[in-house]
Amino acid sequence: MSALPKDLSAGEDRRALVLEAKDRLSLRDFAVDETLGPRDVRIAIHTVGICGSDVHYYTHGAIGPFVVKEPMILGHEASGTVTEIGSEVTTLQVGDRACMEPGIPDPMSQATRLGMYNLDPAVRFWATPPIHGVLRKSVVHPEAFTFKLPDAVSFAAGAMVEPLAVGVHAVTKARAAPGHVAVVIGAGPIGLVTVLAALAGGAARVIVSDIDDGKLELAAKLGAVTPVNVAREALADAVKRETAGWGADVIYECAGSERAIADIFAPLCPGGVVVFVGIPLKPAAYDVSAAMLKEARVEHVFRYAHVFPRCVAMLASGTIDVAPLITRVFPFTDSVEAFELAAGNPKGEVKMQIEMAD
Amino acid sequence: MSALPKDLSAGEDRRALVLEAKDRLSLRDFAVDETLGPRDVRIAIHTVGICGSDVHYYTHGAIGPFVVKEPMILGHEASGTVTEIGSEVTTLQVGDRACMEPGIPDPMSQATRLGMYNLDPAVRFWATPPIHGVLRKSVVHPEAFTFKLPDAVSFAAGAMVEPLAVGVHAVTKARAAPGHVAVVIGAGPIGLVTVLAALAGGAARVIVSDIDDGKLELAAKLGAVTPVNVAREALADAVKRETAGWGADVIYECAGSERAIADIFAPLCPGGVVVFVGIPLKPAAYDVSAAMLKEARVEHVFRYAHVFPRCVAMLASGTIDVAPLITRVFPFTDSVEAFELAAGNPKGEVKMQIEMAD
Amino acid sequence: MSALPKDLSAGEDRRALVLEAKDRLSLRDFAVDETLGPRDVRIAIHTVGICGSDVHYYTHGAIGPFVVKEPMILGHEASGTVTEIGSEVTTLQVGDRACMEPGIPDPMSQATRLGMYNLDPAVRFWATPPIHGVLRKSVVHPEAFTFKLPDAVSFAAGAMVEPLAVGVHAVTKARAAPGHVAVVIGAGPIGLVTVLAALAGGAARVIVSDIDDGKLELAAKLGAVTPVNVAREALADAVKRETAGWGADVIYECAGSERAIADIFAPLCPGGVVVFVGIPLKPAAYDVSAAMLKEARVEHVFRYAHVFPRCVAMLASGTIDVAPLITRVFPFTDSVEAFELAAGNPKGEVKMQIEMAD
Amino acid sequence: MSALPKDLSAGEDRRALVLEAKDRLSLRDFAVDETLGPRDVRIAIHTVGICGSDVHYYTHGAIGPFVVKEPMILGHEASGTVTEIGSEVTTLQVGDRACMEPGIPDPMSQATRLGMYNLDPAVRFWATPPIHGVLRKSVVHPEAFTFKLPDAVSFAAGAMVEPLAVGVHAVTKARAAPGHVAVVIGAGPIGLVTVLAALAGGAARVIVSDIDDGKLELAAKLGAVTPVNVAREALADAVKRETAGWGADVIYECAGSERAIADIFAPLCPGGVVVFVGIPLKPAAYDVSAAMLKEARVEHVFRYAHVFPRCVAMLASGTIDVAPLITRVFPFTDSVEAFELAAGNPKGEVKMQIEMAD
Repeated sequence: MSALPKDLSAGEDRRALVLEAKDRLSLRDFAVDETLGPRDVRIAIHTVGICGSDVHYYTHGAIGPFVVKEPMILGHEASGTVTEIGSEVTTLQVGDRACMEPGIPDPMSQATRLGMYNLDPAVRFWATPPIHGVLRKSVVHPEAFTFKLPDAVSFAAGAMVEPLAVGVHAVTKARAAPGHVAVVIGAGPIGLVTVLAALAGGAARVIVSDIDDGKLELAAKLGAVTPVNVAREALADAVKRETAGWGADVIYECAGSERAIADIFAPLCPGGVVVFVGIPLKPAAYDVSAAMLKEARVEHVFRYAHVFPRCVAMLASGTIDVAPLITRVFPFTDSVEAFELAAGNPKGEVKMQIEMAD
Repeated sequence: MSALPKDLSAGEDRRALVLEAKDRLSLRDFAVDETLGPRDVRIAIHTVGICGSDVHYYTHGAIGPFVVKEPMILGHEASGTVTEIGSEVTTLQVGDRACMEPGIPDPMSQATRLGMYNLDPAVRFWATPPIHGVLRKSVVHPEAFTFKLPDAVSFAAGAMVEPLAVGVHAVTKARAAPGHVAVVIGAGPIGLVTVLAALAGGAARVIVSDIDDGKLELAAKLGAVTPVNVAREALADAVKRETAGWGADVIYECAGSERAIADIFAPLCPGGVVVFVGIPLKPAAYDVSAAMLKEARVEHVFRYAHVFPRCVAMLASGTIDVAPLITRVFPFTDSVEAFELAAGNPKGEVKMQIEMAD
Repeated sequence: MSALPKDLSAGEDRRALVLEAKDRLSLRDFAVDETLGPRDVRIAIHTVGICGSDVHYYTHGAIGPFVVKEPMILGHEASGTVTEIGSEVTTLQVGDRACMEPGIPDPMSQATRLGMYNLDPAVRFWATPPIHGVLRKSVVHPEAFTFKLPDAVSFAAGAMVEPLAVGVHAVTKARAAPGHVAVVIGAGPIGLVTVLAALAGGAARVIVSDIDDGKLELAAKLGAVTPVNVAREALADAVKRETAGWGADVIYECAGSERAIADIFAPLCPGGVVVFVGIPLKPAAYDVSAAMLKEARVEHVFRYAHVFPRCVAMLASGTIDVAPLITRVFPFTDSVEAFELAAGNPKGEVKMQIEMAD
Repeated sequence: MSALPKDLSAGEDRRALVLEAKDRLSLRDFAVDETLGPRDVRIAIHTVGICGSDVHYYTHGAIGPFVVKEPMILGHEASGTVTEIGSEVTTLQVGDRACMEPGIPDPMSQATRLGMYNLDPAVRFWATPPIHGVLRKSVVHPEAFTFKLPDAVSFAAGAMVEPLAVGVHAVTKARAAPGHVAVVIGAGPIGLVTVLAALAGGAARVIVSDIDDGKLELAAKLGAVTPVNVAREALADAVKRETAGWGADVIYECAGSERAIADIFAPLCPGGVVVFVGIPLKPAAYDVSAAMLKEARVEHVFRYAHVFPRCVAMLASGTIDVAPLITRVFPFTDSVEAFELAAGNPKGEVKMQIEMAD
């Protein structure tokens, strides 16, 4: 644990949700050493969403090569209020409501300079060991990755920008024409934000596949959505029916499913696009010659880049409404319980959030 | 006038709205010689929209190099019902409701083969001399340019696909990311379909400029639209205010205004896109060095290509609603009066349509 | 066998190289029924290249679903001289030297109209059952798929346009910036045309991998090429060394190798492109998460579209020189022997051609 | 003039070519205050090219809004040798030969983060007031904008990377397919580097227009170039002849000529691209409707971004040879004379360089 930092004033609330080790969470005092630089802001955290990756660190102690070796604060989907600004900050003021992009790249790395800061191996990402997350009372963050929320965007919606950004980034990569037909494979949280993003991004219709009727029902409420339970009907058949045999323009694979990947080109139209959003656990069988017959383009996304301002704009104008995805809210004091519940993968829940104001 | 065609059965209704010459319209019998080929369909026309170009042929007798030298039937925005199909037609059946793309290219021309059939100089376009339009009871048309209307799309909406296609084509060319900010210059019919297309195609907000408060009011009802009366405020100022100084991602010039073109890059963001949709009467002063400072991309559209199916899909799913733009409907018997009214550029009207069913 | 066609004049030379059935070739009289339409030309064949697919039909009697059930003339890489033109032909004259694109699509199919005629399932492709190839004295072909050869392009080079088109199409799909670094996996005929196309299309350097030193030696002579024998050094290591650790901008997989596909993203730079050109025999293990970490774009090609004129232009200007790939030429009378030799996959041969003029 | 900097060792050679004011140059001692940061390198300058902008500051004292108010060192096209590296530098070593990108952006600005650092208004660019250039013995520069020269690239060629980068950036924006036909309007230094870049970037042929036969002769020696003297033949006619009437795929306007801009779309093919590289002095008449008939895409470039490494790679592999453009070299001691000569716009000179040794 860090020593008491110099800039931490006496009476400050230092509580944080700390993952002590695999399977062991505590809500306790935890001081983080942070200095406000000239281009930084300090934010009082208001709302933090619980992400599958937070839960996975809790239940497994690691994600791939990222292993929790020291106590680490969880949480990376956050909104709050600016309480202090650095001397060179120009776009934010004390009192502004904001959401924050959780990854901070090296501004001089080659990937960052090319505009692909999400691919910078030096990126420091909240709640990815050894970087602390934001289930705590305040954080210091660069102005460049902090985005003002207009009045029309609530703290709850602001804390949804991070997961939404994944879907919007995937749709940005697809570059499909307005009026296209999209398929989203998997109606989990990432699938659902991709549905919202696809509808906002020009899809005339989104065909969503899953094997869980409850999730499909929720998806169907999000707009021009056709749910397909692939336990009962082959996706390619459903897509053919909906597209007069031509196929879908874009397919978003959001399940990381090897089975889905094996047949991924069957529902695609000639010249169509497949975007891999869900992360499969291991290499999957991939049908190159099926992709060739359609000259498919395949895109892969890793988190997002340059997407937060556009997400905020769509929430502000009502183009996207994330409210149906927020299924439960906990007070900070119940955050250990919230994670225990989340670890059980509770039926009917999509996004659970924690409100930090006592 | 054409001789009586072989395939015209005795009792057929041959009435058509004929532009006899500049300023002279008649609703009278007029036989068009048409043979149904193996890949053609015959359509009973239901609704035809009145376009500015139809009116311009009426009041001026010509548009640029296209001069009305012989009597010509007007009308090219049409929907109807399939009444007969050629022997090789597979995608349409008798009784299908449909809308039709009015331009038929040479399938073997270089432009067509490249997928840009709208740029084929050999294209035969309804109501562009010497090709007859469709303000008549029936027409023979290629299957490939006839698109089935789902139940959810009315004949009125189907006849709006043609003008809507111009806006959707412009938005397709812009290739902007979801959540972008667009500007539409000019709130006439083409401006308004571009607003609808931009909103459907991923704009978080559309800033519409005009000098007519009435048109701006209508535009403001179409969704996340910010109207700007440029008689009272400079467009660049309004855009700066709405975009925190950054500028708009896309600017659609739909007015063909030399004045707007002179300053067109001022409201644009770095790396942004300008799409020219409105046709200026003559070359306009264009600020190359202003465009350079932003590395602007500029696109130009000519009608549309490959857009009708996507327009139909968006009307079917409710992504786009054209009803607010249809301000008046006339019976076929009043079509001369309809054109007389349209020629006066009546305040408050956007799209006037003619219903062919007596 | 077809009956004697009407338009075949008495003394005409009807010899053709006929695949009677698997493993059985004969050079014999064989009349093909062909009528010259208004937009067709007749071509006296001069040179025909032997392609791996021709040889595969000979040795296996089929490629995937395409089975040789009746005697079929082989050959689809051809050049010749126009001997007759249809009444509406405008771009070719009798006496013009030309090369021909072997696939004729349905001009009204949806894929063709979109500009992707190579993806039209109705395409009729020379020497793909049941369509005859051109190892015969003359052929009737559409003007639109026949391309005039300038004086600077020999018949031999003209007959190389077809295989070259595959490489140029792959490079067209890659859309890489001038000065990029490309990798070509596999130094067989398709790998080598891709090397030529990549160098012509803006690669500063092409790293070619194979396990055959002889092939790599030939590749190394084609320009700024770095050969890598992957039996001795891992491709990713070689690419890292050549790119200061950043990775290659584009990787062309031309071997159809499952092993290469398994590690295909390792030598790629962040934001790079993989193009699948070689056809693997079955689905291959594909590492989605490795592709995600680099946000790879993956393109797949099927033959080519709109590429022949650009190939001819590059051969004419000397941008590409295919001569080093033509390793042997046979007279038509020895064409059975040529195929027997080709079937043995002879060391040191890249492209063998047959000259039809006795 | 700056005070003597702390890090300037006693015997250091402080000579620099100083523009004292409009029309007044001196080669004299001039100390620049520079500290080597952890990610900076110090470079001993070897060769500096004379650019038209350097000469323009000399003869006019200003370029647009940039006015020389204090003595300023000229020169921004430079190569040299690394003599010292900061503590965190990893890609360069003392003794490395290098070329340098002359503009340093704010790494946290919005444009820079998006990958468009050339559009950052805060960029500090050598020899653009008030930033000093590099006609001096050494300079401190960020590692990220300093690029190692391989052995195969001479100092002279290294100092050509800056102007070459303009052409390569223009070609990168064009995104044309391999084998395309390009037009370059204007055979001055920028026109000629664009010719080299277009040929390297996939043009099968470049048609170059100018009114000076001497410049056209030089252009014609650079590769597959067709010179057109537009004093004797209309460009559109020449392009039609060379492209069988179809038009050029890309047109690079490198002359900043209002007259050329007025007809810029005439030689273009349907769906073609115009890139504005030369900067016109004022807004030019631009034919929107001509652009529409071809659905032209128009790109505008401002300097370059992310291009230096690709230029170095093409010089290293021999893809581009800039030697024919370097027409004269001066020793540093003669640099005032060099500028006096350059100011006279001497016939036959393309690029003049100054060698700093001595």
